[in-house]
Amino acid sequence: MSRAFNFSAGPAALPESVLVQVRDELLEWKGERASVMEVSHRGQAFIDCAAEAERDLRELMGVPEDYAVLFLQGGASLQFSMVPMNLLSAQASADYIVTGAWSQKAVKEAKRVGGVKIAASTEGENFARIPRQEELKLDPNAAYVHYTTNNTIFGTEFHYIPDVGSVPLVADTSSDMFSGPMDVSKFGLIYAGAQKNLAPAGLTLVIVRDDLLKRTPSSLPTMLQYGVHVENKSMYNTPPTYAVYIAGLVFEWLLAQGGVKAIEKKNIAKAALLYDYLDTTEFYRAPARKIDRSRMNVRFHLHDESLDSEFLVGAKAAGMDQLKGHRAVGGMRASIYNAMPREGVEALVAFMEEFRRRHA
Amino acid sequence: MSRAFNFSAGPAALPESVLVQVRDELLEWKGERASVMEVSHRGQAFIDCAAEAERDLRELMGVPEDYAVLFLQGGASLQFSMVPMNLLSAQASADYIVTGAWSQKAVKEAKRVGGVKIAASTEGENFARIPRQEELKLDPNAAYVHYTTNNTIFGTEFHYIPDVGSVPLVADTSSDMFSGPMDVSKFGLIYAGAQKNLAPAGLTLVIVRDDLLKRTPSSLPTMLQYGVHVENKSMYNTPPTYAVYIAGLVFEWLLAQGGVKAIEKKNIAKAALLYDYLDTTEFYRAPARKIDRSRMNVRFHLHDESLDSEFLVGAKAAGMDQLKGHRAVGGMRASIYNAMPREGVEALVAFMEEFRRRHA
Repeated sequence: MSRAFNFSAGPAALPESVLVQVRDELLEWKGERASVMEVSHRGQAFIDCAAEAERDLRELMGVPEDYAVLFLQGGASLQFSMVPMNLLSAQASADYIVTGAWSQKAVKEAKRVGGVKIAASTEGENFARIPRQEELKLDPNAAYVHYTTNNTIFGTEFHYIPDVGSVPLVADTSSDMFSGPMDVSKFGLIYAGAQKNLAPAGLTLVIVRDDLLKRTPSSLPTMLQYGVHVENKSMYNTPPTYAVYIAGLVFEWLLAQGGVKAIEKKNIAKAALLYDYLDTTEFYRAPARKIDRSRMNVRFHLHDESLDSEFLVGAKAAGMDQLKGHRAVGGMRASIYNAMPREGVEALVAFMEEFRRRHA
Repeated sequence: MSRAFNFSAGPAALPESVLVQVRDELLEWKGERASVMEVSHRGQAFIDCAAEAERDLRELMGVPEDYAVLFLQGGASLQFSMVPMNLLSAQASADYIVTGAWSQKAVKEAKRVGGVKIAASTEGENFARIPRQEELKLDPNAAYVHYTTNNTIFGTEFHYIPDVGSVPLVADTSSDMFSGPMDVSKFGLIYAGAQKNLAPAGLTLVIVRDDLLKRTPSSLPTMLQYGVHVENKSMYNTPPTYAVYIAGLVFEWLLAQGGVKAIEKKNIAKAALLYDYLDTTEFYRAPARKIDRSRMNVRFHLHDESLDSEFLVGAKAAGMDQLKGHRAVGGMRASIYNAMPREGVEALVAFMEEFRRRHA
């Protein structure tokens, strides 16, 4: 096996057993005498495949009956627009909690549609922390409150669900969905690009509460209306069938792991391993505030950034890839999503300690 | 080998040699120690992969320098909206040639944005033919002229490029792009969902002439602005990397076949084989007007539709799948895109003749 431990922030590592199954049935899928990617989305085999993926997702996340689950395209970036186009109006305003570059992009798109109030922003602190509940300036008349649950670039994560009263809560969960349990009933709408914890890029997941569908103006482009996709069970047009199939296999894998509760336990342990090590040394520095640290994206810097290249080359030689931090912040980033085995984190810590000793 | 001859209209068959390569490098792609679907779209390996796909596409189609090539998401259905949102305005109008269900959907979305004039429609004749150049009522002040080059449901295809003077010509080529040469310089914009001749569903190809990018109103959602995707080389957000990779392999395969000129020759021969047979018997009926017959989707009906089920069961037993016609028109449909080998068409004709004899 010459696969590396892959710390990519996204598109990211998928469970190896899933990839093996994908490979083994690539040319012939079940009784279909064709690849999954070669069969009609209107045929029974694919309809069953998508329905099973939805069933498993509902079981994993405990999605209540009055929420629709959609398999769409366009990534979180298209959701930045679809959310306000469907839920906001020119006369109304929505509250946005700004905790990083992705929230900022969401704000930018919402402003094209209606009013935006910033409920809180940690931009002044380089997004190194998550605002507390008490800091949120919430408008009781807001069309919704939007936030980003996990910030891949800055390595922070909400470890609480904002209490927004009766205002619908909207969350971009692209980088931590399925990393642990989530009380879906507390949300009006949840969306996630799939390319981190779920499937190859090109699939976007949306979970939306039925009553919100009434808000959509009928003037919207058909493809941007949530209700159209709900009515058509995500098959108004051809869905990204291959990505849906792989997401389905990942859901099966998650269930076999014991579900999101069990996965969360593993994720907490993996993250602790790395953060605990970071806290023992000043050779490395983790900029995110401790209580807000992300379990998915562990961001750290070498005390001496002139060693960055050597660190990356050494890590690669030791079988660890894609550790370079986001270009906006530099340094290192270890993305340790569901598919990263504990052994990968152990190997990273061992390498970091060995590298530190060599340069101490 | 238990793969069938797969006549699906889309998602459709891909070249088997491409699928074999996809399978063989599924867990480890080149020197990446990861699957293509697990690496960052910002990494050099994927940037090179996408650039090579674009280069091969440009070579295949002879795309002029002043046209951008985009790899997007959302299918032709999202293009039905993006085209008018970018190129039309509320005060202007565009001409639409209506030759089937897909053109009708395109009209519906354009009407949300601005004026629409129907340059021609064959709806009154059940879309069994393509209008001639002389029939087109073209407005010299139109923002653009839109048409659908091939109609998958009705089995018709434009075998000429409409002459629209200096008005930009926009074409939905989802089901016949890369089936033969196309003079790109005659078009303002060409788009295609990839799931027929190119790649798995979830990738949309757009080829757009630079001067048209100036029309886009800056108020549009960022993700719907062609110019944003041009500036960002289709990486404004995460592209559907796996589908781009497979499209790239299909382009390589097309080049190895001798390019689109050689593929067209094969496609003409494959279609002739089937249509010539259909013309010898009254047991089957091909509703599309002869000169407008599609080379991609051969639509036919049994003279006695009570035999339809038996036909489909028999075809399946003989190794031929997905021959059922679209629910809107019934009957049969043999989609014989680039990846369908001549042997598949020969097998179908042999089966049809055997079936006819049995029931004559």
